[in-house]
Amino acid sequence: PDAAARRAAEERNRQLTKPPGSLGRLEELAVWLAGWQGTARPRIERPQVALFAGNHGVARRGVSAYPAEVTAQMVANFEAGGAAINQLARIAGARLTVRALDLDRPTADFTQGPAMSEEECCAALQAGWEALDPEADLLVPGEMGIGNTTAAAALCAAILGGEPETWVGRGTGVDEAGLARKAEAVALGLRANPSARRDPLEALRCLGGREIAAMTGAIAAARARGVPVLLDGFICTAAAVVLARSVPGGLDHALAAHRSAEAAHGAALEALGLDPLLSLGLRLGEGTGGALAVAVLRAACACQDGMATFAEAGVSG
Amino acid sequence: PDAAARRAAEERNRQLTKPPGSLGRLEELAVWLAGWQGTARPRIERPQVALFAGNHGVARRGVSAYPAEVTAQMVANFEAGGAAINQLARIAGARLTVRALDLDRPTADFTQGPAMSEEECCAALQAGWEALDPEADLLVPGEMGIGNTTAAAALCAAILGGEPETWVGRGTGVDEAGLARKAEAVALGLRANPSARRDPLEALRCLGGREIAAMTGAIAAARARGVPVLLDGFICTAAAVVLARSVPGGLDHALAAHRSAEAAHGAALEALGLDPLLSLGLRLGEGTGGALAVAVLRAACACQDGMATFAEAGVSG
Repeated sequence: PDAAARRAAEERNRQLTKPPGSLGRLEELAVWLAGWQGTARPRIERPQVALFAGNHGVARRGVSAYPAEVTAQMVANFEAGGAAINQLARIAGARLTVRALDLDRPTADFTQGPAMSEEECCAALQAGWEALDPEADLLVPGEMGIGNTTAAAALCAAILGGEPETWVGRGTGVDEAGLARKAEAVALGLRANPSARRDPLEALRCLGGREIAAMTGAIAAARARGVPVLLDGFICTAAAVVLARSVPGGLDHALAAHRSAEAAHGAALEALGLDPLLSLGLRLGEGTGGALAVAVLRAACACQDGMATFAEAGVSG
Repeated sequence: PDAAARRAAEERNRQLTKPPGSLGRLEELAVWLAGWQGTARPRIERPQVALFAGNHGVARRGVSAYPAEVTAQMVANFEAGGAAINQLARIAGARLTVRALDLDRPTADFTQGPAMSEEECCAALQAGWEALDPEADLLVPGEMGIGNTTAAAALCAAILGGEPETWVGRGTGVDEAGLARKAEAVALGLRANPSARRDPLEALRCLGGREIAAMTGAIAAARARGVPVLLDGFICTAAAVVLARSVPGGLDHALAAHRSAEAAHGAALEALGLDPLLSLGLRLGEGTGGALAVAVLRAACACQDGMATFAEAGVSG
C-alpha cells in the first residue's frame, strides 16, 4: 500500500463537510482503499466476482443436504444467469467469471488420504491465479461445491486448531445426523492426513478442494497485483486462511465482506483479525456476501470523492 | 400489507435455486416488501430521501460541537450537492428533496417551556406529510439541525422513560462538559414541560423540533400510503418513536436501516423492536444510513425477481 496516498486520503477526509469520524467505517474504507489504489480519491470501477466450482470425494459420506450433481447444475445456472450471484453481481456492477474445475473428476475422499495430488492442487491454484481479470480493481472470490463446508471445516481445524465439532455447521441445511457425519469426516480426515497440520499449503492439498485452492490462488494473485479483495463466507475465508498462514502479510489486501450464518465463520474471521462489514444471516456462498458489500465500498468512495470540503462549501468547521 | 402477495412471495422464494433460508435477511426483506407492494416480485424504483432542516433554541446552551449557523450552511451544501447524503442518495438511485423549516426562527429553548406552539408543530408535521413524493416507492427520512441530538434525547426520555444520561451521547462530537450540558438540558426540559410525559405528540411539540416533527409527518404519510420506510439514525428514530407510541401499528411499514454510533440509538431501536440492517459506525444523520441500506433492499428485490427456480434451471432441489 501507498503510505503517501493514505495520508493524502486522511487529510482530504478531515476537510469534508461532516463531523470527524461521523461516517464510521466508510471513512476507514476510503482511506484503506486509497492506500491500495495509490490515490486520495479511490474508485471501484471494475469489480470482478471470480466464481470457482469443484466436486468433493467426501460428498459421498452424506455431508450435504444436496447430491453432488448439483454442483454442475448450478454451474449451468450461473452461466444462464439464474443464480443469486448473477443478480448480486449485476447490481454491484461487477463482472462475473465462472470457472468449473474438473467437475467430472471429484477430489479423493480425504477421510482415506489426500484429496489432491501435488499436481492437482497446483493446477487449481494456478487456475485461480489466472482467473483474476487484469483490469479488475476489486476481487470477490466465490465458490460452489457440494460438500465444501466439510472441506473448509477440515482445513480450518488443521491450520487453526480446535476440535472438528467447532468447525462444522449446517452448511446448505443438514440435520443433526448430517452434522455428526461432517464432524466424523473432519476427524477422520485429520487422522488420515497427518502432514496437513504441518503446513497450510499441505493442508489445502490434503483436505481442501479445487475451488478452494483456486480461491487461494486468486486471492494471492490479487495480493501480488495490489488488488483489494472482499472475502465472502466460510469457505472463501478458509481459502484465505491458507494464504494468511503461508505468507506473512498475505492477506493485508483483504476485508471480510460479511459474517455468514455458518457458525464457524465468525471464529475463522476472528483468527484472521477481520471485522466483517455486514451481518445479514447469509450462508449461500457463490460470492453473494462479497458482491453485496461492494455497495459499501462504493459508498465509501462516493463520499470521499464527491463531498465538498468545509472551505469549498463555506461551512463553519 | 397484502397477505396474499406475501404468501406468493414466500412460495416463489421457496422455489428459487438456493438452499432454503440461505439468503438470510434478504429473503425476509423481499417477502416484507412484497406485502407492502402487493406483488410477489417487489421492486425499488423510485426511492426518495426526504431531508428536513430545523434550528433549535436549546443550541444556545452549548450542546453541540458546531454553531447553529451550520444548519443553514449545510442546507446550502445539500442544495449544491456537496454533502455526504448527496453522494449516497445518488449511488442509491434516490431522489433527494430538501426542506428547510424556518431556519431563521429557531424553536424556543425547551429548558424554559415548550419548543413549539401547537400551530408551529402542526405546520412542521404537515410540511413533512406533504414532502412525500407521490411517486416514491420507498422513503428515507433525513435531518440536519444543530442541537437536535439533545432534542431527540429529550423526546426519548419523555416518551420511553429512563434517565436523561442514558439518552444523551456525543452527537457531532461534544466533549465531557458538552455531554453534561446535554444531560442537564434534557433534565431541565422534562421539568419545564410536565405535559410532555403524558402524550407523544405533546412531547414532540414541547421537546422536539421542526425537522423532527416533519420526519414524523413524512413517516406518517408513508404509512397512510403504504410506502415502506428505512429509518436512519437516532434523531430519525426519535421521530418514529412519536408515531409508534401515538398510533398502534403506525410503524409497521418501517425498517431500521442501521445502528448508529450514537449510543442511545440502540436503546431506541430496541424499544421499537427493530433490528438494524447495518452497523457501520455511522453517526452523521442526513439520512445517510438509510440511503446506504437502500442497496440491501435492492439486493433482496434483485434475487427475488431475477433468480431461476429449481424447475427452470433443472437443479435437483
